[in-house]
Amino acid sequence: MTAVDDRPERPLRVALLGCGTVGAEVAKLLTHSADDLEQRIGRRVELAGIAVRRLNRERPGIDPALLTTDALELVQRPDIDLVVEVIGGIEPARTLILTALERGAAVVTANKALLAEDGATLFAAAEAAGTDLYFEAAVAGAIPIIRPLRESLVGDEITSVMGIVNGTTNFILDRMHTEGVGFSETLTLAQELGYAEADPTADVEGFDAAAKAAILASLAFHSRVRAEDVHREGITEVTRADVATAEAMDSVIKLLAICTLTDDPEPRVSIRVHPAMIPSSHPLASVGGAYNAVFVESRSAGRLMFYGPGAGGSPTASAVMGDLVTVARNRVRGAAGPGESSYAQRQVAPIGDVVTRYHVSLSVADVTGVLASVAHAFAEHGVSLQIVRQEGVGPNATGPTGDAGSARLVIVTHDARDADLSATVETLRSLPEVHEVISVMRVEGDRA
Amino acid sequence: MTAVDDRPERPLRVALLGCGTVGAEVAKLLTHSADDLEQRIGRRVELAGIAVRRLNRERPGIDPALLTTDALELVQRPDIDLVVEVIGGIEPARTLILTALERGAAVVTANKALLAEDGATLFAAAEAAGTDLYFEAAVAGAIPIIRPLRESLVGDEITSVMGIVNGTTNFILDRMHTEGVGFSETLTLAQELGYAEADPTADVEGFDAAAKAAILASLAFHSRVRAEDVHREGITEVTRADVATAEAMDSVIKLLAICTLTDDPEPRVSIRVHPAMIPSSHPLASVGGAYNAVFVESRSAGRLMFYGPGAGGSPTASAVMGDLVTVARNRVRGAAGPGESSYAQRQVAPIGDVVTRYHVSLSVADVTGVLASVAHAFAEHGVSLQIVRQEGVGPNATGPTGDAGSARLVIVTHDARDADLSATVETLRSLPEVHEVISVMRVEGDRA
Repeated sequence: MTAVDDRPERPLRVALLGCGTVGAEVAKLLTHSADDLEQRIGRRVELAGIAVRRLNRERPGIDPALLTTDALELVQRPDIDLVVEVIGGIEPARTLILTALERGAAVVTANKALLAEDGATLFAAAEAAGTDLYFEAAVAGAIPIIRPLRESLVGDEITSVMGIVNGTTNFILDRMHTEGVGFSETLTLAQELGYAEADPTADVEGFDAAAKAAILASLAFHSRVRAEDVHREGITEVTRADVATAEAMDSVIKLLAICTLTDDPEPRVSIRVHPAMIPSSHPLASVGGAYNAVFVESRSAGRLMFYGPGAGGSPTASAVMGDLVTVARNRVRGAAGPGESSYAQRQVAPIGDVVTRYHVSLSVADVTGVLASVAHAFAEHGVSLQIVRQEGVGPNATGPTGDAGSARLVIVTHDARDADLSATVETLRSLPEVHEVISVMRVEGDRA
Repeated sequence: MTAVDDRPERPLRVALLGCGTVGAEVAKLLTHSADDLEQRIGRRVELAGIAVRRLNRERPGIDPALLTTDALELVQRPDIDLVVEVIGGIEPARTLILTALERGAAVVTANKALLAEDGATLFAAAEAAGTDLYFEAAVAGAIPIIRPLRESLVGDEITSVMGIVNGTTNFILDRMHTEGVGFSETLTLAQELGYAEADPTADVEGFDAAAKAAILASLAFHSRVRAEDVHREGITEVTRADVATAEAMDSVIKLLAICTLTDDPEPRVSIRVHPAMIPSSHPLASVGGAYNAVFVESRSAGRLMFYGPGAGGSPTASAVMGDLVTVARNRVRGAAGPGESSYAQRQVAPIGDVVTRYHVSLSVADVTGVLASVAHAFAEHGVSLQIVRQEGVGPNATGPTGDAGSARLVIVTHDARDADLSATVETLRSLPEVHEVISVMRVEGDRA
């Protein structure tokens, strides 16, 4: 604690925007932990107002005198030093945050969607006012990942960030593995248990993970990356057959957010969210249920992993409170923390240029020569094969004869460009011997 | 980047104390990454001097003009802004760091032994001078754990920190499990491979882990905890039989650093380093080789884990460089980061008051009634049993007769006070039916 702590100065005043699961928890901690927070910050903090949509909801433990429906008036109050935004969404959150920053208030937000859409505007406003914008809670709930990327690893060169950053989809995929049930059935269960929203689009289509990926890539590569830059595929098309195939390969299917740099002389940012197979031995494979984990590789540090609860009122409130103490300490000391670092200005590579491995499952005619045709399709697009496995299907499937039964071919490629793989799949679809391209899935994690 | 960045100001000058594995790597990064560092800090940093013990050693890539054997003169130079200490040990490191801090220079250190012995003095000097003392590299190498405890979780209440924080002992125990070989044989191998020092005492006797535990506990519990407060047991007495028993229990043996709070009305810090069995399903169980991991539990965040390389020149240099950028940014902004937080002033509980589970392995006479005597010994000290398993040894071992063969009893207790367990073991040793108390080991991780 610094010398300034003992001086009788007025408390720092906090405005809380939003009082849902996270907001109510933040309000509770601000009240119950006030003495500890004062010791840790060197100044008392007090909750000065809470903006809500409706005044007449039941809110146990919250002083009704603090509530207001006029959020804009609250952030404009000259006595407010710190603003916590846990409303989510683009508007009115953006206007409220910008108004607060322009007044010089420090802002703590959990708003991944807004940061991934318009972070640059917010950072510029914070910088112009010499104040703080902190957002640890925006990615991976309680897991400290923003601060490690922004500060701990800032003297290193990060080469890749790969994470399970959406608990809903991880819960669903996990269940599909353990229970052997399909996607829609599992989604319904997840909704019943409260792990998925009534409208699950943001989670299952990968929008939530894409916003988080954009934030992680921006920090890791000192560049501006937006949600719209992220190649995004959700989990709605993951089938029971995919899950079974993954298990046969001693792998599991996870929805991954992957941020890497390309091998070009001027490296570009490759950023994508999609389901992928990873080996069961990979540290991310055992991240179950609604947990999140982020795997970071850098030149000097090597491989790091951060693991913990990815969502929920309490865990998210923990991250918000850590930021709140930090920005309050900064305010007591009279200096803001680190701002945006986007000097590297790396370009984003199109998905076609991404290089990874692929698992392709085909239903083919069980005739002599089919393997040669299929192998030729891969070869003509420059995709080389690592594993080819033929699995019998149907009564004549395993017979070596030229009958018209169908068999299944399972193929794993070596590293290939996404564009080349897509072209290969087009060619495969045109082959008369190929009845169906059953699934195409990327294979991530350790290279074989 | 803030507006101040563009002003032509003189570079920040760095003095490096020590040029071994870590120091040489830091020197390399400071030189090769100078342009990136300047962008990230907002000011150029330059390496202004390196204190070494001997000038005439081969140091590829290091400008000999930077070298000096007079470390004290180097830290007293008025142009030095930032000091990186990677010498290790108590003296001369303490004098050099204090001299630097008193001059107002910021210090980045990897020195766990010094911080755990005399951190309070260093923090007081930093605070008096209004400057920074950062030490991410002191615990768990490249893994960001200091900053998460000191900043990310500072708005939360941490209840426990449990970690594998010594790579040498983890490598040895791991090998004992995978190869089924004994301690001394494995130690020799570890020395040959460079994972253990010629004098392995600091590692295998748990001194290194104890220093790190003290640092972690101080941060987690906002209290002063020193290395001498840590109950410490090394791994030299872990036998092949212990390893086999652990495996039979679907567990592994790890050297753990455990920091918790007691259940008292005024919670005390319980802090200890010892080998323990943890279930194979525990996240720490799969931390292999020279990797480190720290498992943190807090009231709001829940369970978090941080994983990565625990030692080595490059990983440690990554942590040092992250701190160096942070203290340099602080200097550019004219404000120091967080100082010591020890306001909670929690007492340290003696080991006797620690509550955990125990695995006890006994060689007993294979006679009727032995189980009753043994069970009575536990009961009279208030230790209740969870599992009792009798394993036959010797030709008559499995016979139900009253012959004089010996059998083995394996016992796992419920939660018990360490003092009660020790008293139980004393009683067991005095029983005529007990030939030998073969091993006593704590059981950690999830409660059964």
